[in-house]
Amino acid sequence: MNANNRPFVFINMAMSADGKVSTVRREQLRISGAEDFERVDSLRASSDAIMVGIGTVLADNPSLTVKSAKRRKERVNSGLPENPVRVIVDSVARTPVESDILNVGTGRRIIAVSERAIVEDIDRLGAKADIMVCGKDEVDLEKLLYLLCSQGVKRLMVEGGGTLNWSLLCHGLVDEIYIYIGNMIIGGDSAPTPVGGTGFIRPDELLRLRLISMEELDEGVLLKWRVLQR
Amino acid sequence: MNANNRPFVFINMAMSADGKVSTVRREQLRISGAEDFERVDSLRASSDAIMVGIGTVLADNPSLTVKSAKRRKERVNSGLPENPVRVIVDSVARTPVESDILNVGTGRRIIAVSERAIVEDIDRLGAKADIMVCGKDEVDLEKLLYLLCSQGVKRLMVEGGGTLNWSLLCHGLVDEIYIYIGNMIIGGDSAPTPVGGTGFIRPDELLRLRLISMEELDEGVLLKWRVLQR
Repeated sequence: MNANNRPFVFINMAMSADGKVSTVRREQLRISGAEDFERVDSLRASSDAIMVGIGTVLADNPSLTVKSAKRRKERVNSGLPENPVRVIVDSVARTPVESDILNVGTGRRIIAVSERAIVEDIDRLGAKADIMVCGKDEVDLEKLLYLLCSQGVKRLMVEGGGTLNWSLLCHGLVDEIYIYIGNMIIGGDSAPTPVGGTGFIRPDELLRLRLISMEELDEGVLLKWRVLQR
Repeated sequence: MNANNRPFVFINMAMSADGKVSTVRREQLRISGAEDFERVDSLRASSDAIMVGIGTVLADNPSLTVKSAKRRKERVNSGLPENPVRVIVDSVARTPVESDILNVGTGRRIIAVSERAIVEDIDRLGAKADIMVCGKDEVDLEKLLYLLCSQGVKRLMVEGGGTLNWSLLCHGLVDEIYIYIGNMIIGGDSAPTPVGGTGFIRPDELLRLRLISMEELDEGVLLKWRVLQR
């Protein structure tokens, strides 16, 4: 647990050599290969919870389950649920009831909404997930992390997208960032990147990182960064 | 010289860990440090010409000269001009007459324009640079590279921006890409990235790369990629 009463938070993303996570149409592409797939699955299996933004749920419909049966079994043998808790940051409760994240695999789901979410949507989703109302207009991420921590989430994996990553980073809520850089050019002025939002403007605002490691993986490179706290 | 009757073309860019070359306001930031500065200067000194898009001229006002007096002297001792030929891709001749690229340092400048450029602008810029009209609405880059090659440019360094990089890459006119990845997060949905334009849409369109090398430099990482021809 972090000194701030929140979990250890790390972002894991994959981007092309030119910094894109998908095409301008927001269609997901295979950026990495089999080795990276195993690495990501292992990271998931080592986490208490996996967090994702509503944009990614709507664009990619991920299940965010642990894919390896062996890893799921190891978790169960350690007294853990098969899958980490899946957390969706979804201010106005737009998660589709039929989405894979709510229907594929066993385990707890949490949908974090703001006070803007309407009761009908909350009730509808409440059958599939625990609803946490925190924040007035947007989800209060600091509060959400505190709540998750108090419920036993000590290690949180964030799998994007760029809007959620930005919100976490600009609030100083991220400890490490792992970015896999794939061997391709996607291009496109409006193609999504790992960190979106409004962005930093002044040089002194920039979030500084320290390189933890770099390694060749599949046909690309995995960079691990530590976020330096201001 | 390439089999296609064009120079060896390489792109050199620097981006943040999240794939941005500047802020959303297009203000340049220091992404790398002293070691990378020397590397880039050495790359410039080893090139016959340096190409840049008009967007970068307008946003950053670069001079694109060789900064080291020693390297300039070495070039002169080898019978070369102090600075490589500076080439601006500028379809409608918007280069400001007072821009640094046209006024700082000795050496030939070429402004490549399309037939859309108006005569007054061409005349005005003609006092500072050689004007090459090639292409109807946009600069025909394949033709431009052929012309440069026929004038002795065997090794061409491209220093962006994202629009020029995209145009060259999607026409298959780039041999290698060197991307320095700095130890910071810039963020911003609309912050410029190393490769802009319309972007590739289908998985089979993506430009594939082969990793040549990776190395730690300053506080970041330098990745060198070879572009795999389709």
